[in-house]
Amino acid sequence: MVPYARRMEYMAFTANVVKGLFGSMTDPNIISFGGGSPARETLPVDTIRQLADEVLRTDGRGVEALQYGPIEGVRDLREVVVRELLAPKGVSCDVENVLILSGGLEAMNLVCQAFIDPGDVILVEAPTFVQSVEIFDMFEARCVSVAMDDDGLIPEDLERKLRENRPKMLYTIPTFQNPSGRTLSLERRRAVAELAERYDVLVLEDDPYRDIRYSGEELPPIKHFDATDHVITAGSFSKIFSPGSRLGYVAAEAGVTRQLAAAKSATNSHTSMLPQILCAEFFKRGFYPAHHRRICDLYRRRRDVMLRCIDRYFPAGTKHSDPDGGLFTWVELPGGIDTTDLLRESTADPAVNVAFLAGEGFFSDRDGQGKNCMRMSFGNTPEELIEEGVRRLGGLICSKLK
Amino acid sequence: MVPYARRMEYMAFTANVVKGLFGSMTDPNIISFGGGSPARETLPVDTIRQLADEVLRTDGRGVEALQYGPIEGVRDLREVVVRELLAPKGVSCDVENVLILSGGLEAMNLVCQAFIDPGDVILVEAPTFVQSVEIFDMFEARCVSVAMDDDGLIPEDLERKLRENRPKMLYTIPTFQNPSGRTLSLERRRAVAELAERYDVLVLEDDPYRDIRYSGEELPPIKHFDATDHVITAGSFSKIFSPGSRLGYVAAEAGVTRQLAAAKSATNSHTSMLPQILCAEFFKRGFYPAHHRRICDLYRRRRDVMLRCIDRYFPAGTKHSDPDGGLFTWVELPGGIDTTDLLRESTADPAVNVAFLAGEGFFSDRDGQGKNCMRMSFGNTPEELIEEGVRRLGGLICSKLK
Repeated sequence: MVPYARRMEYMAFTANVVKGLFGSMTDPNIISFGGGSPARETLPVDTIRQLADEVLRTDGRGVEALQYGPIEGVRDLREVVVRELLAPKGVSCDVENVLILSGGLEAMNLVCQAFIDPGDVILVEAPTFVQSVEIFDMFEARCVSVAMDDDGLIPEDLERKLRENRPKMLYTIPTFQNPSGRTLSLERRRAVAELAERYDVLVLEDDPYRDIRYSGEELPPIKHFDATDHVITAGSFSKIFSPGSRLGYVAAEAGVTRQLAAAKSATNSHTSMLPQILCAEFFKRGFYPAHHRRICDLYRRRRDVMLRCIDRYFPAGTKHSDPDGGLFTWVELPGGIDTTDLLRESTADPAVNVAFLAGEGFFSDRDGQGKNCMRMSFGNTPEELIEEGVRRLGGLICSKLK
Repeated sequence: MVPYARRMEYMAFTANVVKGLFGSMTDPNIISFGGGSPARETLPVDTIRQLADEVLRTDGRGVEALQYGPIEGVRDLREVVVRELLAPKGVSCDVENVLILSGGLEAMNLVCQAFIDPGDVILVEAPTFVQSVEIFDMFEARCVSVAMDDDGLIPEDLERKLRENRPKMLYTIPTFQNPSGRTLSLERRRAVAELAERYDVLVLEDDPYRDIRYSGEELPPIKHFDATDHVITAGSFSKIFSPGSRLGYVAAEAGVTRQLAAAKSATNSHTSMLPQILCAEFFKRGFYPAHHRRICDLYRRRRDVMLRCIDRYFPAGTKHSDPDGGLFTWVELPGGIDTTDLLRESTADPAVNVAFLAGEGFFSDRDGQGKNCMRMSFGNTPEELIEEGVRRLGGLICSKLK
């Protein structure tokens, strides 16, 4: 038996955490606040059908959609990123700074390929997106946590960790964070960019939710404050177009983008062409603004129902984040309730049968933080089922406190 | 400036070779035998348009095509691989052995993620597919060459290299090899499987051309002879469906497939859904057999024209491979002609203006082998232009020998 590479052992623990978090939710009768999928009602199936028909009827375009394409991605789609997704947020860059990826998650993989040697330290938020930690583990990085509060990661703790650990990179999800739903404040965004310059560390700004803000004031990405090319900003089409299309992007200094393209070439040559062209056409023909309003309205209503129901049905002393966008809220339960046990009970009891993600797995330090926390997604559940599910789950929690 | 990872420096040399090989062919008037694209006439644009229309009109299927999907790939497509691509070639396996990938090249990346530590030795053929070497370099492997003759890699040299280098893996393209067009004989296929068992090394069988055989007798993949689960066989939909869809697959022992799926999850979550579903429907609805006959006929005619014209227009003493399938022939020129110089002259002279790939870059040992060789692709050039291009190029070569 040929032995596996060392990195596979290194990543096995987190891979099991991910499996534990996302597995075992196949009961069709379950009310699931677990997954991170966008609402099926937000998928523009009919528009994409019409665009596919037109693209594949157009002589050159049909062949282009099926033939090999450029490593960096379809030029039209890179222009869409520059013009419609980055410029309106205050990030001005050129097509040469943008690389189209096979989904937002590929950014973490390629940035690691380009920058991370085994043993390098990556600072992550506590809690953080556990699937990114799985990638950092695969590259044998050492993750060190930075504390958060309601305004996102805390710059003072970040600076302490920068001094103590000499990291190569900070990984942050600044907007409607996964899993916490929290957003890094304006002042802290500026502070993060300044600390990156001062300590000469890379910032990987993973920002797949920034385009689905439905309340509060717009905030510029950290990349906006990046005067010294220390920030790589990553985005995704999963929440605003279609996750199954696996389309994401990074924007970075041109030399960095070229290195990421070299890693991309040695990963899967380039991203699938038909989804890229359909997505570019979706934006170029002006379908995005109305679609965007529609999905933001839907998520706002679902969020409102979930937060109202948590306030109503969960026990006194429960805390939750108040996200101005995205798909999640983060709940802290009172009374020493262990959410891993709670999930087991909830899904085993046919009278409850509600799923969520237990909080512990989202803390890379594995120091017992988050045991009383849970990520609750309102993205893919209709309003009446959100109310029903929160009511049932609240009943179970309250019964455990008696 | 944050330093790049060590692997990026390690891969830079080969990345430049790849760039040099495939770059600078943007003149639209050039007759190019350089690229490895399938013929544009073989892309089933109309069929895919009809399938897209139907899939996206069907309630559950349309949503499935745009929503997140399974890491391992769409089940329908994995079944197609088992039933229509592997079983007819003598490889019997189950869906759990098959993983759908984002293009055939991703197999090399994921197998390296799962198995290759820095410093591990990978045996490769001389010549070999340079883009795979680029991947092996990114994983900081050390490539060692195994000699080939007209029947593919030579088992005696393979065994010597196995003893001398204690490699982790053998990388081979057994059928209509890229770049040489050569095919490993039946006896040698069996020998490779036996040597893999005896020396306990992995065999990565990269076999993207096996489905486009248009003359000679069918040969079973090396995987057919693999009694001890040492062989991972990789295939691609690029040549038989569409390269821009970026669809490939691996088949391996179930435990290995699970590890490759873990690496896939930490690379890009899963492969784009719409292309997978369109490809599965293409096979399930029976479009493949007629399509397959049509593309094999086209490539056979193009091969025949190219080989006939090389015999006619190239100087005496020229040798070329006689591929029974695939897209390439490999040409050895007499008289000490350096094909790197020849390419420069050929593309600089408006009266010639023919491109091909110079042979030297395909030898990972960089010991001067292949200087008089060239890869000539007949895949994406119409017959009359093949004749014209080979005539012009032959004229240039003959003029240099005077």
